[in-house]
Amino acid sequence: MVFGNMGNDSCTGVAFTRNPGNGENKFYGEYLVNAQGEDVVAGIRTPAPVNQYSMNEQSKQYTSLEKLMPSLYKELFSYQKRLEQHYKDMQDIEFTIEKGKLYMLQCRVGKRNGIAAVRMASEMHKEKLIDAATAIMRVGPNQLVELLLPMIDPAVEIVTKPIAKGLPAGPGGARGRVVFTSDDSVAWAAKGEKVILVREETSPEDVDGMHKAQAILTTKGGMTSHAALVARGWGKCCIVGCSDIEIHNDTKTFHAKTGEIIKEGDWLSLNGTKGLVYEGSMALTDIDLAKNESYKYLMQLVDKIKQIGVRTNAETPEDAAHAMKFGAEGIGLFRTEHMFYGEGSEQPLFLLRKMIVSKTEAERRSALNELFKYVKKDIKDTMKVMKGYPVTIRLLDPPLHEFVPHDSDKLTRLGKELGISMSVLRRRVLALHENNPMLGHRGVRLGISFPEITEMQVRAILEATAEILKSGKKAFPEIMVPVTVTVNELIHQKEIVDRVYKEVCTKMKMKKIPYLYGTMIETPRAAIRAELMANVADFFSYGTNDLTQMSFGFSRDDIGGFLPKYLDLKILPYDPFQTIDQDGVGELVRAGITGGRKAKPHLKVGICGEHGGDADSVKFFHRLGMNYVSCSPFRVPIARLAAAQAAIENKK
Amino acid sequence: MVFGNMGNDSCTGVAFTRNPGNGENKFYGEYLVNAQGEDVVAGIRTPAPVNQYSMNEQSKQYTSLEKLMPSLYKELFSYQKRLEQHYKDMQDIEFTIEKGKLYMLQCRVGKRNGIAAVRMASEMHKEKLIDAATAIMRVGPNQLVELLLPMIDPAVEIVTKPIAKGLPAGPGGARGRVVFTSDDSVAWAAKGEKVILVREETSPEDVDGMHKAQAILTTKGGMTSHAALVARGWGKCCIVGCSDIEIHNDTKTFHAKTGEIIKEGDWLSLNGTKGLVYEGSMALTDIDLAKNESYKYLMQLVDKIKQIGVRTNAETPEDAAHAMKFGAEGIGLFRTEHMFYGEGSEQPLFLLRKMIVSKTEAERRSALNELFKYVKKDIKDTMKVMKGYPVTIRLLDPPLHEFVPHDSDKLTRLGKELGISMSVLRRRVLALHENNPMLGHRGVRLGISFPEITEMQVRAILEATAEILKSGKKAFPEIMVPVTVTVNELIHQKEIVDRVYKEVCTKMKMKKIPYLYGTMIETPRAAIRAELMANVADFFSYGTNDLTQMSFGFSRDDIGGFLPKYLDLKILPYDPFQTIDQDGVGELVRAGITGGRKAKPHLKVGICGEHGGDADSVKFFHRLGMNYVSCSPFRVPIARLAAAQAAIENKK
Repeated sequence: MVFGNMGNDSCTGVAFTRNPGNGENKFYGEYLVNAQGEDVVAGIRTPAPVNQYSMNEQSKQYTSLEKLMPSLYKELFSYQKRLEQHYKDMQDIEFTIEKGKLYMLQCRVGKRNGIAAVRMASEMHKEKLIDAATAIMRVGPNQLVELLLPMIDPAVEIVTKPIAKGLPAGPGGARGRVVFTSDDSVAWAAKGEKVILVREETSPEDVDGMHKAQAILTTKGGMTSHAALVARGWGKCCIVGCSDIEIHNDTKTFHAKTGEIIKEGDWLSLNGTKGLVYEGSMALTDIDLAKNESYKYLMQLVDKIKQIGVRTNAETPEDAAHAMKFGAEGIGLFRTEHMFYGEGSEQPLFLLRKMIVSKTEAERRSALNELFKYVKKDIKDTMKVMKGYPVTIRLLDPPLHEFVPHDSDKLTRLGKELGISMSVLRRRVLALHENNPMLGHRGVRLGISFPEITEMQVRAILEATAEILKSGKKAFPEIMVPVTVTVNELIHQKEIVDRVYKEVCTKMKMKKIPYLYGTMIETPRAAIRAELMANVADFFSYGTNDLTQMSFGFSRDDIGGFLPKYLDLKILPYDPFQTIDQDGVGELVRAGITGGRKAKPHLKVGICGEHGGDADSVKFFHRLGMNYVSCSPFRVPIARLAAAQAAIENKK
Repeated sequence: MVFGNMGNDSCTGVAFTRNPGNGENKFYGEYLVNAQGEDVVAGIRTPAPVNQYSMNEQSKQYTSLEKLMPSLYKELFSYQKRLEQHYKDMQDIEFTIEKGKLYMLQCRVGKRNGIAAVRMASEMHKEKLIDAATAIMRVGPNQLVELLLPMIDPAVEIVTKPIAKGLPAGPGGARGRVVFTSDDSVAWAAKGEKVILVREETSPEDVDGMHKAQAILTTKGGMTSHAALVARGWGKCCIVGCSDIEIHNDTKTFHAKTGEIIKEGDWLSLNGTKGLVYEGSMALTDIDLAKNESYKYLMQLVDKIKQIGVRTNAETPEDAAHAMKFGAEGIGLFRTEHMFYGEGSEQPLFLLRKMIVSKTEAERRSALNELFKYVKKDIKDTMKVMKGYPVTIRLLDPPLHEFVPHDSDKLTRLGKELGISMSVLRRRVLALHENNPMLGHRGVRLGISFPEITEMQVRAILEATAEILKSGKKAFPEIMVPVTVTVNELIHQKEIVDRVYKEVCTKMKMKKIPYLYGTMIETPRAAIRAELMANVADFFSYGTNDLTQMSFGFSRDDIGGFLPKYLDLKILPYDPFQTIDQDGVGELVRAGITGGRKAKPHLKVGICGEHGGDADSVKFFHRLGMNYVSCSPFRVPIARLAAAQAAIENKK
């Protein structure tokens, strides 16, 4: 809709009652003299601004309508005001002036970007044009992403051709120099370089390098691969499954299908919102949320209306603090195993490995005793930040062999420090191998095979809580048992908790340490048997990632092989790891809540899978009567907005 | 209950109204002169026989009661007859004679082994002592195993100490010389040696060696590991997860916890019913079922009463013929991929591999075209044996990389024959790797990614059927789509089936080729969405192995790490891969049937998981209203008996 100005008394124009680019309450528009429909569509002629406010670099040479036809402009201005007052929303208006007479051709609700949407919603509410519910419904939850993340400058992006396209795993924009290993990422970043880590796929050992990189680009994996999950957790730009490029590690290059060869150190820019990869360094926009008064105003309305709580998945004091700023009301998932990844994890990881390759309970207990202080400190540091908001701590979940080093160097060191021969060590490591680790010896199965692991963790949680309380501060842990299938597992682990609880109370000279005991519901069987589980559990937290994996028989790590085709052919309407599958997985969630609340009418129910940060899923969980959702820190505002919208939609 | 004879007019005895060892309708018992309760328990003295029939090697030196006290024996004989007639079952009788007077102390239903149970049930029915239903309820389904398999001679076993104990994966007894590789098993067997294959675990590449061995012993894996499943399918003796022994492949020995070191070539005897391993070669019993008139009589009664059908899981003409003899009424699961394992599979496997590492549809189609004739012949050969009974053919199910060779030699050959470089081949193989193949690119996901695979298989099935019909014989295939999660998959594959059907009808000049089109229900989501699935499927077949894996989140291959502890601690009452978990998995089965029959009231529903051969599970499936169960050939009689018992129990 662009128009040129040729100086005549006939013209056609398009205008917005407020600025659709930033939301400012200013009349904004352009017009073209002697224009027809075809000129409008062709966009060959540069349009003139309707007023001084609408003037830009291209149009400043033209006379504004306000100057050219002051009285008609005044008339137009008053109409647009009336239209907005009447429709109570920003209007996209088409008008024409023929022989000195103004005709209003049409008006409709105007499109706007996320930043503008938030500002208009807040300001129209302040102006009492709309009520709180209407203001909240005016902003698409995913539009908030634009306020939360830098992006590639749209003006630059529109004229640049991408060299590859992948899956948009982590939104926002980023630029940096290409590195191909996690170690290089750390090393280059230490020298002050901005880097983009390019890998076939990532594993927990890459976490440090991923953290130091501006963005991550992988050639394999789906929207819920390791890279995608970690990046989304941090709000980091990430593109995965980008099969348009082929990495050649030997020459430290990658080849794009379009022919470009990118070397280590070359600049790259990523649009993680669309999955686009560009050669070179492109300008980025940036936004400071703390200064965004409209955002803060809107979120206050949101919090008054929403009913379902919003927690975060976090396991470091930094992430927890970050999430608190974003409005989190607790931690819904603290993964105890995360202390074994990334910076500062060397010693605890070594002790964990020592425990893992132990053969006897005595050996294992000795390693666990050494590990104890690290685990306690880790939990305590984050719980302190949460200031008494509930912190749901999941007992050790992943298959143990995930932590065992596979490269020769690290194995040699482990063997040496443990004082066992390499052949014995190799045999023990081999014995841990599993064909389908996702369905293997993990979760509560570890706590039942090795009760001393549960014991150590529970002691760490309760002592950390007691110490915080004794220092006059608040703390409230929720102990969560993962991957359960039967109430008997909960009974077995509860005996350990009860015993340790008494011991800690005695040691800390306390009569009571507050805590809850609950379970993940993440296997289909747990959902089916929920009524019995609720007899022992104080709360349920749905692990919808695993529940989706098991209900579909889709491994998150392996969906890259077939899911794209499923989505292309519309065999599935969307990626069920992104938006909850209401008809299938959702039925199990529903059945589990119904069952659980049959046993305990006020059973606390939450969800801590990736779906906790997806707007449609949050609305579904609201309808099912959940108490809270939990998502990565960055998605907390999105979940809060979705929660408020759910409350409004449900009232109707 | 053993007694000695010291010549006096007081004595105490135990007798059975029929022989509890073989079921013969002969009065059988022993007595001890001047005996007290304590003598009876101690069993120090050798008892005397009550009559000539009861005499054995140890007791032949003593005078029988019949000879010693003829009139009292006559009295006893008539009482026992009356007691059996009254109670209508074999009685275990205690009597005493004091000062020439006979006192009947007690009587109760006598214990008997499987062989005796079958004979008594059949003969009592022939004698019109009991009705058919009673006869059928008299035999425990698992007692039939004793009639179907050789066992270690009980007399020898009772005096021998086992050197190790594992999980009883395949019942029966076996003896042979120890070998540690599949190749050795094949080579030694070719020289006429009886061997026992001892491995840490087995994989599809071991199938030939497993087939040639008398029995299989593994140190790892659970009751549903590869070794256990394959062995049970053949009715072969097998012990798995035997962690009491440690294999040393370097010295070709294994060390037992008890201290024994067994070398290659040493003799070993296994009791697969109890999981016991013995050193040396022990005598085996053997039974010819064809000559067992009682068995045949009982099974005729069974077939008149049972309502649910019994099919078999088979994919060779030999297995199919075997199952037909055991009374199978069709094939419930023909795994198309089994032609790529074992003897004669070299060329088809090579073509399959060629297809797998193809990059373009054209390459893949060319490999599939070559493969076609093998697939058609494979299906046709077995369908012919089944003489018009339905044959459910499952489309390709396993993840493709399962078929790719991993050793260097085979890879080199593959690369050479395919005319691609080793680095290209390695990259293609690597790309097929999955973290959790059970939840990966398998089942219908293959058919959707590569529709040409489905097309080739469907063409083979329909052409094979047409050719059999044209030769004047009968054939009835049921095309089954595996690992579905949504009706859209069924619609997608049905379009291929419909198109190929028309092409085959034209080519074969036939107006109609009979077939059904259906789906496995083996993901929780499929069970939940069954109503929609039934709109397209003519039948459902429950894959309860996978359904159990996904409902519990238990990988069958990896349960060895935790399931033994779960069973020990009674966290689970039994192995859910052996007996269906009625409360959890069973609820999904029930929901799927209800949903499916809502859409199609006469929907044909069966089950083809391992549970089809488990008596308790068969009874559960009967109660759910399934049309048939399908199990390995060897378990067909057990399933038939269980089916009849279910019909009887349900009538009450």
